[in-house]
Amino acid sequence: MSKLQAPERTRIALDAMGGDYSPEEIVKGGVAAAQDDGMEIVLVGPEDIVRAELGKYGSTNSRISIVHASEVVAMHERPVVAVKEKRDSSIVVGIELLKNAEVGAFVSAGNTGAVMTAACLALGRKKGIGRPALGAVFPFPAGPLLCLDLGANSDCKATSLVQFAHMGSIYMEKVFGLENPRIGLLSSGEEDTKGSQMVQKAHKMLRKAKVNFIGNVEGRDIARGIADVIVTDGFTGNVLLKLGEGIGEMLLDSLRAAVAENPALKEASDLLEPTFQSVIRTLDYREYGGALLFGVNDNVIVAHGRSDADAIKNAIMAAKLAAEQGVAGAMEG
Amino acid sequence: MSKLQAPERTRIALDAMGGDYSPEEIVKGGVAAAQDDGMEIVLVGPEDIVRAELGKYGSTNSRISIVHASEVVAMHERPVVAVKEKRDSSIVVGIELLKNAEVGAFVSAGNTGAVMTAACLALGRKKGIGRPALGAVFPFPAGPLLCLDLGANSDCKATSLVQFAHMGSIYMEKVFGLENPRIGLLSSGEEDTKGSQMVQKAHKMLRKAKVNFIGNVEGRDIARGIADVIVTDGFTGNVLLKLGEGIGEMLLDSLRAAVAENPALKEASDLLEPTFQSVIRTLDYREYGGALLFGVNDNVIVAHGRSDADAIKNAIMAAKLAAEQGVAGAMEG
Repeated sequence: MSKLQAPERTRIALDAMGGDYSPEEIVKGGVAAAQDDGMEIVLVGPEDIVRAELGKYGSTNSRISIVHASEVVAMHERPVVAVKEKRDSSIVVGIELLKNAEVGAFVSAGNTGAVMTAACLALGRKKGIGRPALGAVFPFPAGPLLCLDLGANSDCKATSLVQFAHMGSIYMEKVFGLENPRIGLLSSGEEDTKGSQMVQKAHKMLRKAKVNFIGNVEGRDIARGIADVIVTDGFTGNVLLKLGEGIGEMLLDSLRAAVAENPALKEASDLLEPTFQSVIRTLDYREYGGALLFGVNDNVIVAHGRSDADAIKNAIMAAKLAAEQGVAGAMEG
Repeated sequence: MSKLQAPERTRIALDAMGGDYSPEEIVKGGVAAAQDDGMEIVLVGPEDIVRAELGKYGSTNSRISIVHASEVVAMHERPVVAVKEKRDSSIVVGIELLKNAEVGAFVSAGNTGAVMTAACLALGRKKGIGRPALGAVFPFPAGPLLCLDLGANSDCKATSLVQFAHMGSIYMEKVFGLENPRIGLLSSGEEDTKGSQMVQKAHKMLRKAKVNFIGNVEGRDIARGIADVIVTDGFTGNVLLKLGEGIGEMLLDSLRAAVAENPALKEASDLLEPTFQSVIRTLDYREYGGALLFGVNDNVIVAHGRSDADAIKNAIMAAKLAAEQGVAGAMEG
């Protein structure tokens, strides 16, 4: 008889140098995630810098390791150039770990375009997918909603939106167990004559596609549970995503101002705090962990560029789930 | 000595047949607005239908009159065709009243494209303006923010965004008294390499334009008071606008659900009600009255297609303000 095996752990590679608050907040988030017994974190970045950050947290957790990468891709760099020239960057090295099956997922809050480019080059795209998309599931009270693209492609063709619809449909079916997921096309009106030329074309194509297309949905429908997947171009998706963030902050600011003006409201505000926080969490994808890169052959999670340690921890948890569920594999159609 | 003159009134033409809840809610909103002594409402639509609606409100107010228009432009009709073929529609007749200076502003919750087309044809565009835009001022706690385009043009060229910036700058200077209004370009990142090809081109052009261009702003910045004017294409603007509506409703639903689950929260929720309502009002432009059509030679207000009587009343009040301030005239540059 063999000895009892250590419980199987999910290894996640984390880009220690990506995002506005790297490496401090990234490493802090990685350390927090490694508190989970079932998790192993591989920090990717310049060893001296990462080690110095890790040093802040005392004795090294055996579930955290470092893989050295000497270069860093900055947020403003042109993705294709950066990925080709910086072969020893934390993004390229992290994606290589994934390619070599040394980890089950890769998480980065760095240059989104560079992550996408590196993933396409090293991991390859799914069959039939021209452009990958960033997607996230929003836990609205009316039901979970997958939105994509949230920013991988600022300019989209109608054919890409149809591909996003197919990927979204498979994802919600396989990961959330929904039968025949309802696909909506984000537009400026219900009628098929509404929207940009591209959106009108996508509408026509989706009518013929093998997905359960329910037609156009408007901004006001997003939180209503009328669709399971909403497809849009990456520009609109990204602007919407960040508006949600801003509105959450405005809501909190308004409450604080009301309490400051009338301290008698403090108790009421405290009582309702959990409700506000749940609304804000729903609007803010930093809260529940990054967006999944749909359309590449492995699990890549893009966290918000402004991620703090909590956001990174949440993104790692989402990556763990993706790795354990074999999300990228499930997307084979 | 002459007799005492009646107080001067502002006459507003109201499209009785426009919007999803016409004619009932439109006429009801018009009747409510006419309670204001300084206001005169001209209802435009089929006389029998409008008179029957007015009949619901008892004795006729002398400040309400009807101008007959036998046709109606439906929401789904192609604007240019509808305006050319339906010369006796409430939209075309209402715009003609404005052109002939019989009213100080025209309000419609009808087919936006048709209102814009009729306005361009009958009133003409401002010098140097290729495409008019819909703009509304959001009363954020951090300061008023003019957003345009909110849906007049689903496809925009970079040159149009520059024109929107010029119009927005003049408006905020002349109507809100701001010196050198700060103009932001809505994009998916701060860097000038972010955004669609069109947005990147607009960024370059705005750098050279004679406006106080502060660069790209993201969705999260909208409520923050970092800009006085935000320009975007009509597709993105419209989606954003309607998302605000949806989020307001989600917030209220979440509060109701929390109170239903725990009745002890009822009192707290009631106490904070004014705060929630003010946040929701800020997000929902129906609350403060329609969008102004920027770039045409008179005051045209486009109300939300789903306007109820309150929204119509608010839109009329906004129209009154525009007429009294001579907003369209002030925009001469």
